[in-house]
Amino acid sequence: MLRTRLTERLGLRHPMIGAPMAFAAGGRLAGAISEAGGLGLIGGGYGDADWLSREFAVAGNKLVGCGFITWSLSAKPALLDLALESNPKAILLSFSDPVAFAARIRNRGVTLICQIQTRRDAERAIDCGADVIVAQGSEAGGHGEKRGTFALVPEIADLVAKISPDTLLCAAGGVGDGRGLAAALLLGADGVLVGSRFWASEEANVSARMHAAALAATGDATIRSRVMDLARKLPWPSRYSARVLKNDFIARWHGREAELCSVADEEAEKYRKAWAEGDPDNSNTFVGETVGLIDRIEPVARIMDRMAKEAATLLRQGTQFVAA
Amino acid sequence: MLRTRLTERLGLRHPMIGAPMAFAAGGRLAGAISEAGGLGLIGGGYGDADWLSREFAVAGNKLVGCGFITWSLSAKPALLDLALESNPKAILLSFSDPVAFAARIRNRGVTLICQIQTRRDAERAIDCGADVIVAQGSEAGGHGEKRGTFALVPEIADLVAKISPDTLLCAAGGVGDGRGLAAALLLGADGVLVGSRFWASEEANVSARMHAAALAATGDATIRSRVMDLARKLPWPSRYSARVLKNDFIARWHGREAELCSVADEEAEKYRKAWAEGDPDNSNTFVGETVGLIDRIEPVARIMDRMAKEAATLLRQGTQFVAA
Repeated sequence: MLRTRLTERLGLRHPMIGAPMAFAAGGRLAGAISEAGGLGLIGGGYGDADWLSREFAVAGNKLVGCGFITWSLSAKPALLDLALESNPKAILLSFSDPVAFAARIRNRGVTLICQIQTRRDAERAIDCGADVIVAQGSEAGGHGEKRGTFALVPEIADLVAKISPDTLLCAAGGVGDGRGLAAALLLGADGVLVGSRFWASEEANVSARMHAAALAATGDATIRSRVMDLARKLPWPSRYSARVLKNDFIARWHGREAELCSVADEEAEKYRKAWAEGDPDNSNTFVGETVGLIDRIEPVARIMDRMAKEAATLLRQGTQFVAA
Repeated sequence: MLRTRLTERLGLRHPMIGAPMAFAAGGRLAGAISEAGGLGLIGGGYGDADWLSREFAVAGNKLVGCGFITWSLSAKPALLDLALESNPKAILLSFSDPVAFAARIRNRGVTLICQIQTRRDAERAIDCGADVIVAQGSEAGGHGEKRGTFALVPEIADLVAKISPDTLLCAAGGVGDGRGLAAALLLGADGVLVGSRFWASEEANVSARMHAAALAATGDATIRSRVMDLARKLPWPSRYSARVLKNDFIARWHGREAELCSVADEEAEKYRKAWAEGDPDNSNTFVGETVGLIDRIEPVARIMDRMAKEAATLLRQGTQFVAA
């Protein structure tokens, strides 16, 4: 019921892309998003070939894409071949320079989506021939940076309009309902990339305890931190942090990063165990500030349908604010 | 040409409030904003009675309001009497609990605006009887906190709708043009509070060199920091930081806060001198992430007229995104 350059170019019914959330966005979630009319992306995460193959298989005949953490992909570039051989509808690259992979993706005729966090990143993405730029604001759950969605999106819209008008633009970070979708379109985006709201779906690979922690939280309850990466010994470049729910683990380590590094072996084991158990207190619940807008876990198709309807209604009623 | 609950309740032609920016928003800027159909607010700042009296006089017969830094007002509460005796159209309180001043403002029949940075603050503002809540996101220039505008506004809109539906809501932080104004309305706001875009006006008390620094910057060029407050020996509560352009001063001190405190006497004198000279390198240019949307210094009436027209056009054209 919404029609934008994104729906037309990618043949979607809804201008919505599912964030390729590591672990949470498997084939089941990505497949459900694509089946419901959006573009589902499997979260390539930190690179496990068996997991990735299996999740593409789970998505089955639904046309999905895959998202990679660019710096991590550099260490395991064969994963990109694996994804490209799985007939992906799109590949998303985020976090570090996409230049090493962009041409291979585009040469296969696969849609290249570059997620960016700054204007400078956006210029680089355009240089690399991105078909779609996702401007991700700090509100987003999981990894990201500091710029906020509200001013980043129009600035990138102006940049794209000026130097690469055929490039599409999606907004990410803070888009949790139809209001966010409608607002993103007026800010100059062609669609949205949705993380937390799809994380809080029945199809996401998320423990019931983490879902419960998110439902109980307001938008004040999240924090950007690096301690979960230090504990997991993941070599994230220092410009990135991850937004998670504040919890016991954050209270214990946030602000004590150097000390954490000195006991990282021990903590990594504890973290791994807590994560495997879906423990929201001793590992992390990766959600963004839209957690304050989420009050139930639902099938993703229902979430998408409601978002689209709400956005359409708002966009139709925008004239109510215009005096005769 | 836009009509919202804010324009109707406050008798405005535009649903725009001028941020009470310390130093930059004097009587000339506030008066020009009110004259152009918005609500101008003098920046009460850190409390200089002579300055405040003079600026109300400069605003003359234009009905303006005044904004205070709440924790600072607590040290000089007589400033509120001074403002209330100046027949203000509204008083804005931001940064710390408004409870000590709210009743005096409301009992005078003056519109009480509470600017908030979290959901918890918003609950408190409602308890205090705020007529208008300004939800300020981290994109904003000057002092603020960490939550982003894009998810904060709809969350506060839901809160207000649920427990205090007559309270009005404005969005602040990242609103730099008509796109931001239109998007804020769809996110659930009744209007916007605009800082940086009005800071970049002919009527603002801003040095030509600071204006030039801002025009040359993209939205990537700002940072939230506390060093300018440490250097000025202003006792800001630690939850707040200020967004400014990155510059020599930030490069020198950001991340070296403890060291800065140890030489604060000397640095305070240097900072004061640089500030008095309008030096953008050795004091600070207080602007938000919308600086990336600003390419000229203009009369504020022209800025407001363009923002309103652009927003009206977007709101009228929203139906273009809705498929038949």
